Amino acid sequence: MRAAVIGLGLIGGSAALALREAGHEVWGCDASAKNAEKARELGLADRIVSTEAATRADLIIAAVPVDAATVLVPEILNRCSRGQTVMDLGSTKAALVNAVKGHPHRGRFVACHPMAGTEFSGPEAALPDLFTGKFAVVCNREESDADALKTAEAVLAEWGMKTVYYGAEVHDMHAAFVSHISHITSFALALTVLDKEKNDKDIFRLAAGGFTSTVRLAKSAPHTWVPIFKQNKKYLLDVLEAQTEKLRLLKEAIESEDDTGLFNLIREANEIKRIL
Amino acid sequence: MRAAVIGLGLIGGSAALALREAGHEVWGCDASAKNAEKARELGLADRIVSTEAATRADLIIAAVPVDAATVLVPEILNRCSRGQTVMDLGSTKAALVNAVKGHPHRGRFVACHPMAGTEFSGPEAALPDLFTGKFAVVCNREESDADALKTAEAVLAEWGMKTVYYGAEVHDMHAAFVSHISHITSFALALTVLDKEKNDKDIFRLAAGGFTSTVRLAKSAPHTWVPIFKQNKKYLLDVLEAQTEKLRLLKEAIESEDDTGLFNLIREANEIKRIL
Repeated sequence: MRAAVIGLGLIGGSAALALREAGHEVWGCDASAKNAEKARELGLADRIVSTEAATRADLIIAAVPVDAATVLVPEILNRCSRGQTVMDLGSTKAALVNAVKGHPHRGRFVACHPMAGTEFSGPEAALPDLFTGKFAVVCNREESDADALKTAEAVLAEWGMKTVYYGAEVHDMHAAFVSHISHITSFALALTVLDKEKNDKDIFRLAAGGFTSTVRLAKSAPHTWVPIFKQNKKYLLDVLEAQTEKLRLLKEAIESEDDTGLFNLIREANEIKRIL
Repeated sequence: MRAAVIGLGLIGGSAALALREAGHEVWGCDASAKNAEKARELGLADRIVSTEAATRADLIIAAVPVDAATVLVPEILNRCSRGQTVMDLGSTKAALVNAVKGHPHRGRFVACHPMAGTEFSGPEAALPDLFTGKFAVVCNREESDADALKTAEAVLAEWGMKTVYYGAEVHDMHAAFVSHISHITSFALALTVLDKEKNDKDIFRLAAGGFTSTVRLAKSAPHTWVPIFKQNKKYLLDVLEAQTEKLRLLKEAIESEDDTGLFNLIREANEIKRIL
């Protein structure tokens, strides 16, 4: 199969590598000439092509920021007159499935979210096994043509992913809880400590593994995450509200030296062991 | 040298293993008979002894929760008539150095904090190389006798640690920023998502690496962390205040769809790359 990946950053670049490993011919393109050149150097794709040329492939994968995807995917679908399959790999789904609703070629599109990533970005961040062993979410599968869905599922399986199915709204709500809020949390922690550093150059000297782990996601790129937070505003504000309340409870217990209350909150948080 | 470790959990157990690897005879004890038995099974120490017997070693290391340490260390010092060296390994320092202030054997004590740990606890969590390559903080070194300080520094060096020196108050303030707040952050995130799980059993299905990393510390034991938060209340509340404000700024930018403001906050948080 000839596959084209539009957007060769962390996610698109990893998809391109995984497609090549599975034996497909891979075309790639990127709106940034610098990223396209870097992708060429790194051998992420067999050929670097224009976006227009990319839409002539059998499988077209949009791996661009989620705001760009709501514009790009309908444009790709406009050109899908010969029955190609189109996938996206974005972290929010409701805005995109709404953007393609009623499109004459809507059935050619499969809305996907591979639950995988790192804090790094750009072509250099691409990893051939980024998706291996992870979950892929396919949303609103009933809106995709059976053969397009089958093609997308086969590709996700080739990448070593286990596919699960959600409605776009449920997906976005879950993503707010188990992915997007973690990023907000890390950004807030980084901002807090960096502020302190302005008056205390020595503050990071003692930073150990715990801090590194909790703050890791704060390295994530703003051009990826601003549109995600914007599109997932509704659910994200709910989670942020809930988390602010939990922080307040912890703070209050510390402030009032309510050792039993604090102990119980921590023991409750320890329940996460059940999950992870 | 004959060394005794009082408290054979994650930190004390790791200290015992590192001491054994360095060729010392190691006695160990634990207030919990179950932990002592487990430590015996795991071979963390050459002998399991009573706390009283432990104080007859040449080097006595207190590795107990920080509230217990403020009671235990003065008691150990009471028995240090033949010039033994006493160290602790706790995560807060001001309360302990205050607790031993003016003790006739104060000079025998060296206040230490190895900046290392994991989210696990108990003897099973002990690792022989937990401290390797990490920083150890020695506080108020001018209050320790020169030979006791030298003994402690030699032991920390044997564990592969690089020793740095702080006043206890400065240490506690730094620890609040680069260690303690990370734990609060993870506890709050875990509590938020676990609450959600009560009505949505499926919520963790999509949890990926980012969430796992940010929430990792939420597995940490309450009997260790309640006393740390209590002793470090003053600095911790400052950091919590600052972090709550950063969360509020992020929330406000999302709420008002201030994309530029949100972008700038994230780009500012990205500065953490400079450090980590």
